Amino acid sequence: MSELDELREEVLAANLALPAHGLVTLTWGNASGIDRERGLVAIKPSGISYEAMTAPDIVVVDLDGNVVDGGRRPSTDTPTHVALYRAFEEIGGVVHTHSTWATSWSQAQREIPLLGTTHADLCAHPIPLTRRLTEAEIEEDYEGNTGVVLIETISLRGPQELPCALVRGHAPFCWGSTPAKAVEVAATLEEVARMALLTNMVEPNAPSLDAAVREKHYQRKHGRHAYYGQS
Amino acid sequence: MSELDELREEVLAANLALPAHGLVTLTWGNASGIDRERGLVAIKPSGISYEAMTAPDIVVVDLDGNVVDGGRRPSTDTPTHVALYRAFEEIGGVVHTHSTWATSWSQAQREIPLLGTTHADLCAHPIPLTRRLTEAEIEEDYEGNTGVVLIETISLRGPQELPCALVRGHAPFCWGSTPAKAVEVAATLEEVARMALLTNMVEPNAPSLDAAVREKHYQRKHGRHAYYGQS
Amino acid sequence: MSELDELREEVLAANLALPAHGLVTLTWGNASGIDRERGLVAIKPSGISYEAMTAPDIVVVDLDGNVVDGGRRPSTDTPTHVALYRAFEEIGGVVHTHSTWATSWSQAQREIPLLGTTHADLCAHPIPLTRRLTEAEIEEDYEGNTGVVLIETISLRGPQELPCALVRGHAPFCWGSTPAKAVEVAATLEEVARMALLTNMVEPNAPSLDAAVREKHYQRKHGRHAYYGQS
Amino acid sequence: MSELDELREEVLAANLALPAHGLVTLTWGNASGIDRERGLVAIKPSGISYEAMTAPDIVVVDLDGNVVDGGRRPSTDTPTHVALYRAFEEIGGVVHTHSTWATSWSQAQREIPLLGTTHADLCAHPIPLTRRLTEAEIEEDYEGNTGVVLIETISLRGPQELPCALVRGHAPFCWGSTPAKAVEVAATLEEVARMALLTNMVEPNAPSLDAAVREKHYQRKHGRHAYYGQS
Repeated sequence: MSELDELREEVLAANLALPAHGLVTLTWGNASGIDRERGLVAIKPSGISYEAMTAPDIVVVDLDGNVVDGGRRPSTDTPTHVALYRAFEEIGGVVHTHSTWATSWSQAQREIPLLGTTHADLCAHPIPLTRRLTEAEIEEDYEGNTGVVLIETISLRGPQELPCALVRGHAPFCWGSTPAKAVEVAATLEEVARMALLTNMVEPNAPSLDAAVREKHYQRKHGRHAYYGQS
Repeated sequence: MSELDELREEVLAANLALPAHGLVTLTWGNASGIDRERGLVAIKPSGISYEAMTAPDIVVVDLDGNVVDGGRRPSTDTPTHVALYRAFEEIGGVVHTHSTWATSWSQAQREIPLLGTTHADLCAHPIPLTRRLTEAEIEEDYEGNTGVVLIETISLRGPQELPCALVRGHAPFCWGSTPAKAVEVAATLEEVARMALLTNMVEPNAPSLDAAVREKHYQRKHGRHAYYGQS
Repeated sequence: MSELDELREEVLAANLALPAHGLVTLTWGNASGIDRERGLVAIKPSGISYEAMTAPDIVVVDLDGNVVDGGRRPSTDTPTHVALYRAFEEIGGVVHTHSTWATSWSQAQREIPLLGTTHADLCAHPIPLTRRLTEAEIEEDYEGNTGVVLIETISLRGPQELPCALVRGHAPFCWGSTPAKAVEVAATLEEVARMALLTNMVEPNAPSLDAAVREKHYQRKHGRHAYYGQS
Repeated sequence: MSELDELREEVLAANLALPAHGLVTLTWGNASGIDRERGLVAIKPSGISYEAMTAPDIVVVDLDGNVVDGGRRPSTDTPTHVALYRAFEEIGGVVHTHSTWATSWSQAQREIPLLGTTHADLCAHPIPLTRRLTEAEIEEDYEGNTGVVLIETISLRGPQELPCALVRGHAPFCWGSTPAKAVEVAATLEEVARMALLTNMVEPNAPSLDAAVREKHYQRKHGRHAYYGQS
């Protein structure tokens, strides 16, 4: 049981990092992590305040979202998380927030254009927007089908090239190789969303970043010959 | 007297939560709570700083707004609070703030459109705006008649479906089954107001949230078969 | 000398309140207070950081701005402060900041329209803007003549009806019966400026607040029969 | 070795001041300082979190950017820093951030117009924008050529008259006689950028500050007869 405890601690830390980065109001937002060997996902309980949350509150579910361990009801967004884990082996952590600026782009139903190097340091493409869910999809399995449209949106490029996406009318989902990496993506996305909005206010027709600069920044951080950070 | 003391503590905590949530500047804003059995309302004193406020400063009034207990003058907005308590049995706590973003919509004299799921998690309708007060209403009983127009605005749907409203040219009022719930509504409304304004900046013609998603979010949190939070 | 020490402490507290209210960046901004009996003004030293400031750093000047006591050079804005004290007996404290939102209106060279009750709680008029200084006025005595245009701007209504004004292209000056009251005006003005700007973003043609509501709010706080706050 | 240690401490302090001033998200941004006698530059390591950073993490490089002392890989922006030090003897410290508002102007590919006295207190010109890098320049030596276009942009007036510039599509670089002065420029620039953007929102055609006021403010702080601050 001690490996599950470790995962719980990691997922608790990721959840607590969300208010620390200013990404959540009240209890909104949730982070999860996966133990790939066991096929088990640890996730935030639904509607619990961050101040009161401790490791035993973190719920463990299987890849169908059934509770396997823990006394709490898991996040209502659990079916979206497990859909992402099932679809992409590379994903080790998922974060969902209603962070102010990224959510505003989701509500505007607009992808986030690539306007600067801060965005290119995260991703070499606009931040994509999911398609509209049909009424049947909402009725049948809303949270699971939110996972379906996220998977559709990123499947061509994969979750490493596209580390996050905006759910139309809702808010962002982010992922990474670990829960901590997914939190880092969420914090970066929020700042990218904020600066894109402010850039638009200075200059409504701001051009996209030059392709050569965009590739340089993305590759120096994520490419085969990356030289950003410590080796 | 110990039950009144409990109510005072509850109302004090709700008042202190307002600056903690970033909803007030200086001494603006006030929270109240009601003891339905006794018909007594506990409310913030007028113009007292939050840092210095203690439980004995909280004033107890009857449902006509007459001071029953306490050495302070109650909030100038007391007649609005008691009007709401008199009109709706379901209301257990009321909060009034001049929080930045919600107040900006009040000043713009525009209801807040329903643009995303964060709004639908709070309420399935646009946040309504009260009608203009007549000069006679202002002259005769300004604060009481502010209650009257709030009651008019929400009476068709009731205070559970509409947990808050914007007073035209002024600022929001919020309510809930307890003072703490009313504070939660106030914090949520402020974030909803902020994201609606930013959404409009990205896309001035942002469409309303799809009705099916709106109903799904509202019902999963507030409906008969709600499955958000812990049971 | 002990009364001067008291004034120094009062002025120090007012200066330290400016960063506490989020009204200053680095060392910008300054507060002063006057001892009317002695005709002496205590004011912030120029370019000293708020963290390091102690009461002995506060400089005492006469009503012509000559240093009477203290080892520091007074704020470069001292001639503006003393001009205001000389012109209006009612002024007991003056605050100048480059607070973000009020300064943005100054730079836009626009008075702040009266759009809501928060503004009316402070002042029953738009926040006025000084006229352009002539080149001769700038050359001859820039800081003194900044006082002159402020005095021109408010002289018709007086410093009680108009507790602050925007210097064109520069930033706000605020005043009150004490240094602490002037700080309160500065904090209120900043929030009023912010909400007016955001209101304009929601609705570029937002109407002025109804005159009857405006008078009601101003009078209940500042009128002869004021009933806001503790008596 | 003790002088290098001193420089490291000074550069560490400058780096830690960046999050303290709200200028950085995650690990973005970097500060450096130079020991002119030895021709050695101390700079932030690449991708290290500010919370964990200590003096031994600061990397010492020569003016060609080769690591001379320290166990870390230096900031990827090191070639830009050393290019600036090589070009201008007056520069003793360099700061690069992706601070929100200044970066938004960089992304909008617009210089920051001189709209108020806060800007004039920093610099008597619009904050300039570098030209577009060619694909060859990006390919060959991206970071070094970022230095080249910065040097081109400021060489006519020099680094004292122009204490900062915006790299097109990227973010600001700032400099000063010491690392601490460069941090002060970065904090001032961010506030100037924010107020310029907000000014534009109030009044899209806001006029430039009158030349006479601009010169007065710049000269009273930076001119031969400066009288701002303590002598």
